[in-house]
Amino acid sequence: MERKEITFTDNVDQTLKMMKDHGLLLTSVGADGRPNVMTIGWGNPGVIWSRPVFVVLVRPSRFTFQNIEATGEFVVSVPTDGMHDVCMYCGTESGRDTDKFAGGDLTVVEAETVRAPLIGQCVRHYECKVVHRNDVADAALSPEIRAEAYPQGDLHRIYYGQILRVTERA
Amino acid sequence: MERKEITFTDNVDQTLKMMKDHGLLLTSVGADGRPNVMTIGWGNPGVIWSRPVFVVLVRPSRFTFQNIEATGEFVVSVPTDGMHDVCMYCGTESGRDTDKFAGGDLTVVEAETVRAPLIGQCVRHYECKVVHRNDVADAALSPEIRAEAYPQGDLHRIYYGQILRVTERA
Repeated sequence: MERKEITFTDNVDQTLKMMKDHGLLLTSVGADGRPNVMTIGWGNPGVIWSRPVFVVLVRPSRFTFQNIEATGEFVVSVPTDGMHDVCMYCGTESGRDTDKFAGGDLTVVEAETVRAPLIGQCVRHYECKVVHRNDVADAALSPEIRAEAYPQGDLHRIYYGQILRVTERA
Repeated sequence: MERKEITFTDNVDQTLKMMKDHGLLLTSVGADGRPNVMTIGWGNPGVIWSRPVFVVLVRPSRFTFQNIEATGEFVVSVPTDGMHDVCMYCGTESGRDTDKFAGGDLTVVEAETVRAPLIGQCVRHYECKVVHRNDVADAALSPEIRAEAYPQGDLHRIYYGQILRVTERA
């Protein structure tokens, strides 16, 4: 599948719409090079520190958390409408027990700037290197959201990934 | 000027492009109701906690910082190409000394969901209520960015504004 490089603002409205409708796929690798993929429904592409940055949130209990802490890299991949079931699957299974690339029939494709892989079936990829991280601040969060999102604590870590490269299916 | 309500994902690519080219305008009000406007070149619209959220960064030294701390609201306004000079002006003067609405010939328009105003000349507005805030974490920031963006400290506060309403010129 041919891919062309695009600017991070190109079709970002479609990326956000797809995230709302099906989710996006977040890939990472551990120190051992083993890749994982999870589904995310939250994320904020934009600009911080004069750099294109994709902000994503990951709970410490997730297998992806260990990966990003170990390697400081991730890729956000935009699925097609037909990948709804795969997004459901990657959002419910854990990479601790399962090879979700095999289970979801997802093709691992090498990225150019990071070790975390692209997914052959996806239409657009944001290759990201973590340049900052902080945590959701319990006391500074709206009580309504606190009750809704964190009944058991497990507050998210917020990763600020500098977008090094964006590609799209040609 | 007629305005229509749109979904936050509509034309968000244009919002980010305009931010790169000219900046966006961030309005706020103090406890006394006096509005201020500053130019921002950084910002991340997206979804967090299953809500549309616009992430913006403000340095504690800014007059806007006092306003947002006092009222917990802001509006992000998207200027036109012809407003480049106004964006430069609003990015260099401080609202402490100057009424930038008067100085920039900007029309104050009442927002529907927050006290921070819209700007008559702008094409798109994101009305936001702060639902979370945290700070740039010095030790967790890339050393390169640390040196570039914070030679004197004054680390940004990060505001997570739930987008309550997006409107566009009809």
